[in-house]
Amino acid sequence: MGIISVKELGNFYVNGHEVILRGLPHKAFICQDGTTQDFDPNGQYEAGQMYVEYVKLAQPKAKYPLLMWHGGGLTGATWGSTPDGREGWRSLFLRYGHDVYVSDSVERGRSSWAMYPEIYRTHPEFTTKAACWSNFRLGPLFAEDHSKRVSYERTQFPVEYYDEFYKQIVPRWRSMDDWAQDAYNNLVDRFDGGCVIMAHSQGANFALPAALAHPDKVKGLILLEPARTPDPQTTDFSALKEIPQLVLWGDFIRVSELCVWTKAAYFKIYPEYFRIMKELGAPINWIDLPKRGIFGNTHLLMMDRNSAQVAELIQNWMGGRGLM
Amino acid sequence: MGIISVKELGNFYVNGHEVILRGLPHKAFICQDGTTQDFDPNGQYEAGQMYVEYVKLAQPKAKYPLLMWHGGGLTGATWGSTPDGREGWRSLFLRYGHDVYVSDSVERGRSSWAMYPEIYRTHPEFTTKAACWSNFRLGPLFAEDHSKRVSYERTQFPVEYYDEFYKQIVPRWRSMDDWAQDAYNNLVDRFDGGCVIMAHSQGANFALPAALAHPDKVKGLILLEPARTPDPQTTDFSALKEIPQLVLWGDFIRVSELCVWTKAAYFKIYPEYFRIMKELGAPINWIDLPKRGIFGNTHLLMMDRNSAQVAELIQNWMGGRGLM
Repeated sequence: MGIISVKELGNFYVNGHEVILRGLPHKAFICQDGTTQDFDPNGQYEAGQMYVEYVKLAQPKAKYPLLMWHGGGLTGATWGSTPDGREGWRSLFLRYGHDVYVSDSVERGRSSWAMYPEIYRTHPEFTTKAACWSNFRLGPLFAEDHSKRVSYERTQFPVEYYDEFYKQIVPRWRSMDDWAQDAYNNLVDRFDGGCVIMAHSQGANFALPAALAHPDKVKGLILLEPARTPDPQTTDFSALKEIPQLVLWGDFIRVSELCVWTKAAYFKIYPEYFRIMKELGAPINWIDLPKRGIFGNTHLLMMDRNSAQVAELIQNWMGGRGLM
Repeated sequence: MGIISVKELGNFYVNGHEVILRGLPHKAFICQDGTTQDFDPNGQYEAGQMYVEYVKLAQPKAKYPLLMWHGGGLTGATWGSTPDGREGWRSLFLRYGHDVYVSDSVERGRSSWAMYPEIYRTHPEFTTKAACWSNFRLGPLFAEDHSKRVSYERTQFPVEYYDEFYKQIVPRWRSMDDWAQDAYNNLVDRFDGGCVIMAHSQGANFALPAALAHPDKVKGLILLEPARTPDPQTTDFSALKEIPQLVLWGDFIRVSELCVWTKAAYFKIYPEYFRIMKELGAPINWIDLPKRGIFGNTHLLMMDRNSAQVAELIQNWMGGRGLM
């Protein structure tokens, strides 16, 4: 592999607002050495900020920076490498010539999280290994006994590294999406020269509203197994009609009884969205990897064994849509 | 600024172990749209993993990779940039020719965190803006009214970006240090060819035990305003006597009445450690920046306005100690 000529690496935060807590009782906590310390939770905090890190190339080939937005329960670590130690899509798309911005959604990873229920509205959800196995469409049967887990035949996911993958799962809130949306919108708004959004799963839930909020700044939308759209009954999508869009799907969606949400997205929500965009004359493409003869992809396309092949397909699409 | 020629960017997790929860009641949670969903917390999880990301150079000049360990309440974001948008030490030390490994300590940032009290022993601590202001030695007076905060005269911290800095503060547990220590030890153990540890504040609490656990793998220790040492009464430090060590301190330690822990570390804990290492004949240096005519540094040396000057001083020390 060649050298990546980097001009700059860095990070910053988008959004965040001050919250003041008052009148809360002190809360003793026990330290590692067994001693007890007083903890006064009253005072000023920040909440709602989103962490963004970037790698800028010395000579980018892409017309616009590429924003990578992870899915639910995950962080920007998604794009950094594969669980079996191959290069992640951040590296692959840097090698293709894109400046890359990776974010951790509000309340996840380096974006920090805030006290609940004092600041966040509810408690978080912790996703079990069993739930991830089915949500990410890895196989028909999860068993606590690792040797009895069953993956889909010819799966591309490196299932022997499933537990390694699972280490990147973080607690998530289902009640703070409005704060995350606002941060994503303001992130997009920073790119006066435009940007391309690559959004995975829940990331797409934020990408479409962000594009609707700043359609002039979004020059391309890559929706990887997207989960939801804004309600078509109440949303005017016409602002997106000039934006090249790719909707990409892996394998096993028909056979997976466990992963109900992918089925809803694949058979109902996204066909409707695709139809609307087509009617608007939008340059949108729908790709089923199995129909291209690419079999075995799970919801975690960027970690599957053929992740480089899928990345290449996306890169070719970007080239064909004038984004390079 | 020149180009950084990168061979590889990636990430991985160290440690992590499976935890199974059983018999817990279901816990409804409220979604953004007001609907309620069932949440069954029972099942398998991982806990104790530590996130590590790396940038490897095409042609490193340093003899060993540089491991950057952040301080308490922080994450690896510490090293990524300064709050006022200058390059962080990760970039500066890459430019000096080091392969750099940045980690998020267990229970922080991208290392995720686990349910408490079911998995972690206690609840976390949330650090207020006031507590950070004093712990990080930014000034004699913190006020909720931003215009009334008082910083130390000639502080090098870009105090007008204090709220921006604070966005990287994360909740922390004081009860899980043993898990973090184990992860740091195993991280060091991966470097068969040796490594240099740069540890800030609480990071030094982990760095010295990790060096004691794997003295053959640690080729240098850079302790930036370190907080604690293992107990000298019960610890044999002789395994460290061949390792070049730098203990570095900023300004305002004498005048800061607020920051009790720095005073204890500066006047008591580290003089004792320094004396022991000297008696062992160790190649250890103690640098007070003000004694070198470098004034105004806070606890956040890597974010202060003169952060590049401090980095250069460290880099020169490394050169002088045969680490380049």
